[in-house]
Amino acid sequence: MEQSIQKAESEFLEYVKKMSAYNEALSLIFWDMRTGAPKKGIEQRSEVVGMISQEVFQMSVSEEMKNYIDTLEKVKDLSEITKKTVEECKKDYEHNTKIPKEEYKEYVILQSKAESVWEEAKEKADFEMFRPYLEKLVEFNKKFIGYWGPPKEGGNKYDILLDQYEPGVTVAILDETFGKLREKIVPLVRKISESQNQPKTDFLFKTFPKAEQKAFSIDVLKQMGYDFEAGRLDETVHPFEITLNPGDVRVTTKYVENDFRVAVFGTIHEGGHALYEQNISKDLIGTPLCEGTSMGIHESQSLFWENYIARDYNFWVYFYEKLKAYSNGQFDNVAIDDFYKGINESKPSLIRIEADELTYPLHVMVRYEIEKGLFNDEIEVKDLPVIWNQKMEEYLGVTPKHDGEGVLQDVHWAGGSFGYFPSYALGYIYAAQFRAALLKDLPNLGDLLKAGNLVLIKEWLAENIHQYGKIKKPLEIVKDVTGEGLNSNYLIQYLEEKYAKIYDL
Amino acid sequence: MEQSIQKAESEFLEYVKKMSAYNEALSLIFWDMRTGAPKKGIEQRSEVVGMISQEVFQMSVSEEMKNYIDTLEKVKDLSEITKKTVEECKKDYEHNTKIPKEEYKEYVILQSKAESVWEEAKEKADFEMFRPYLEKLVEFNKKFIGYWGPPKEGGNKYDILLDQYEPGVTVAILDETFGKLREKIVPLVRKISESQNQPKTDFLFKTFPKAEQKAFSIDVLKQMGYDFEAGRLDETVHPFEITLNPGDVRVTTKYVENDFRVAVFGTIHEGGHALYEQNISKDLIGTPLCEGTSMGIHESQSLFWENYIARDYNFWVYFYEKLKAYSNGQFDNVAIDDFYKGINESKPSLIRIEADELTYPLHVMVRYEIEKGLFNDEIEVKDLPVIWNQKMEEYLGVTPKHDGEGVLQDVHWAGGSFGYFPSYALGYIYAAQFRAALLKDLPNLGDLLKAGNLVLIKEWLAENIHQYGKIKKPLEIVKDVTGEGLNSNYLIQYLEEKYAKIYDL
Repeated sequence: MEQSIQKAESEFLEYVKKMSAYNEALSLIFWDMRTGAPKKGIEQRSEVVGMISQEVFQMSVSEEMKNYIDTLEKVKDLSEITKKTVEECKKDYEHNTKIPKEEYKEYVILQSKAESVWEEAKEKADFEMFRPYLEKLVEFNKKFIGYWGPPKEGGNKYDILLDQYEPGVTVAILDETFGKLREKIVPLVRKISESQNQPKTDFLFKTFPKAEQKAFSIDVLKQMGYDFEAGRLDETVHPFEITLNPGDVRVTTKYVENDFRVAVFGTIHEGGHALYEQNISKDLIGTPLCEGTSMGIHESQSLFWENYIARDYNFWVYFYEKLKAYSNGQFDNVAIDDFYKGINESKPSLIRIEADELTYPLHVMVRYEIEKGLFNDEIEVKDLPVIWNQKMEEYLGVTPKHDGEGVLQDVHWAGGSFGYFPSYALGYIYAAQFRAALLKDLPNLGDLLKAGNLVLIKEWLAENIHQYGKIKKPLEIVKDVTGEGLNSNYLIQYLEEKYAKIYDL
Repeated sequence: MEQSIQKAESEFLEYVKKMSAYNEALSLIFWDMRTGAPKKGIEQRSEVVGMISQEVFQMSVSEEMKNYIDTLEKVKDLSEITKKTVEECKKDYEHNTKIPKEEYKEYVILQSKAESVWEEAKEKADFEMFRPYLEKLVEFNKKFIGYWGPPKEGGNKYDILLDQYEPGVTVAILDETFGKLREKIVPLVRKISESQNQPKTDFLFKTFPKAEQKAFSIDVLKQMGYDFEAGRLDETVHPFEITLNPGDVRVTTKYVENDFRVAVFGTIHEGGHALYEQNISKDLIGTPLCEGTSMGIHESQSLFWENYIARDYNFWVYFYEKLKAYSNGQFDNVAIDDFYKGINESKPSLIRIEADELTYPLHVMVRYEIEKGLFNDEIEVKDLPVIWNQKMEEYLGVTPKHDGEGVLQDVHWAGGSFGYFPSYALGYIYAAQFRAALLKDLPNLGDLLKAGNLVLIKEWLAENIHQYGKIKKPLEIVKDVTGEGLNSNYLIQYLEEKYAKIYDL
């Protein structure tokens, strides 16, 4: 390699390291704002966030960045890390520079107004109040598709938006995968509602003191292999995982005294996200590759632990006694079978974030179909409430009483996030595929769970998925781990088997 | 004002706002590192601190900064805030640019090495191990005096170092003030040691549960007017106060189960610092003026609350019953008079940070005399252990058994901080002067304390001292509040009266 190229490479790596440093500071600020920053300091703190975010943004679209990209993308013998870092930076550069500045500024102002209008509209269940904002947001995103596009040959315009969150995943892929899944889940949901064998659940809702919920949550996190020397657990209204660097990956949870499930499954869910981030290769620190490769793969990790591990019967063979010991005696007369069925109850419901693992993907599909329709000019914003309710009835057999519990329930659209929802369902599908692959390597998974031995599972995930960070794209990971592409059959088979047993179908 | 000047002013203010934003992020990082950041993330976090600090430093010495200073310092009709901000920036600019870059780099490396060597040397009580580093640090600072100097006419070389921490305070002033003080305290300390009326203290050292110490500390902080919506209290090994912005001023404390005094007086001390920062005018946010004006004035605020309020008899007329209620009964048979005398015990000791309010200034004077001697070439580093021990004997009547509890006890010199120590004693002197002034405005101070009414005190301090931030220099504040210059007579009078009563002299 020429000396001038070497110099450019090392300067470039230093440049992205600085961007990472600013991002780490921003992450700490967000964590702090949600875990207990005094409220009178928030106004000024927001200024700080604005200034630092602005700086990172400017660095991503600067002449200097452009020169690094132009110089380095032509070099053949770069290290893999530099090469992929250049690719990431180029993607960002183009994403951020293709929209004319004035237009983007207008859009940012619109987003922030739309969010506050949405909040009130949701509260009042008044779609008409929010409609003009949503229409403008959709219009802007249609223009953005024009700037960012066109889609690959034979592709769909909506692919351009999907690509922001799940690179490589397209409408063609989703139509097939989601289609198959829906075809099987919809009748399964119906059968379950009609089953005579509904699980008992009353014992779930007794008082379980917060301190004991916390102690149990910590026990489980430790057993999962979450490293408390590289993280911490705090309490927030909305639980989340946030990464400062792979040596500092924090989780939060929420304790509801008469529903221990919120903290226990919530902590395990965030713990799954955290294991991903704690186990990314240290070689990627200081580059944009040092994070989960996509929304969907990230969600696959949290769901893997929450559903495939912590909602598995064998997991509770080990943990039920511990849970009982921490509780106030609410499970004393509850057999493990009844407990298992209780925590796996499935019921169609109106609100996505309260849905169970069987019905959740259907909530996502409602949104996917609508977004696809909007960006292909097949649906108009004004018709959304009607379409929403029709689809809910069709997929889940329930109809919202008002738009507050219907089309207005999620913040995503108000924030201009179109193309994001599918990742949630992809998480379920990926996770089921990963589970099938893991079972080939660890056929004794059931025995491991019964013995509370979760370390081998964590190590398998770390080796096959986590370590790569953003080095591999989502479908590349799926291919390398499972030998195939996106495939919803594994999820279908898993759900059919599991729920047939629970509901005696 | 010309348009071009207006433009320069607004750009300049935006520039310093950005520096403030970075400093706020750094403060949060420091707070986080000390209150519970996971240890495996620290290495990467240090990189982040390095990058952001470097950025702030570069901004303080940039061509852009120089241009702002050159342009704006000639303008007559600037607002007071802009004018003082320019002055602060100029001071920093000159301070940071006068040392040749290579030399400064060498010095930074030396500092960090010296600190780790000092740690080991202190542990081993081995001054010879640390000596070569200290010699180099002193040499560097002598050169810096050359760059930063010369002192004002008739001034002392050491003035240049003092000016970094306590602008306007000089050797001439300190020699007089400290001299008078020493002349009176030294015999007072002797008399007290010989007094037959030593306070009982055994009752201080019973088990006082941590949770109750915390509850009491919070009660007192609230009563002082510390705003918990603009701050929070956490636990650390070394208590501190840290400001993110005036709406977010955090304190930490330390709980020792068999010595409640550590938490109670420690929290009040840090609370005094915090009140200063919470009450700085909001107009100064985003400028370098938005902080305490000097080390010494800051210390005067913490000491004011710790000693003049919380070690006053009347304070305990109100708070003793509360303290009793939180305790495990350790004060049940202790009359308030005995309690008051117990918490005001004075005894010469070897370690500065454990000293009481009477002997503390003497510890500072030992260091002041040595620093002054070093930078006037009257003392050599190699002779420090001997000189230290002589001065301790002369001022306090005690002699260290080894250098670990003598000349090696403080980290300041290892970090290259020369000229810093005097501020601690200045804090005592300022605070006594402020107390005398406050008594003129609130002659019923005793009654206020007896009623637990601390709000008027807080308001008086906020109005007379806090609100100005760095708008006024330390001696300007003293002059405006007391009508005179630095004067140790108030401290002398206070100490003589107080200790005569306690020890029945």
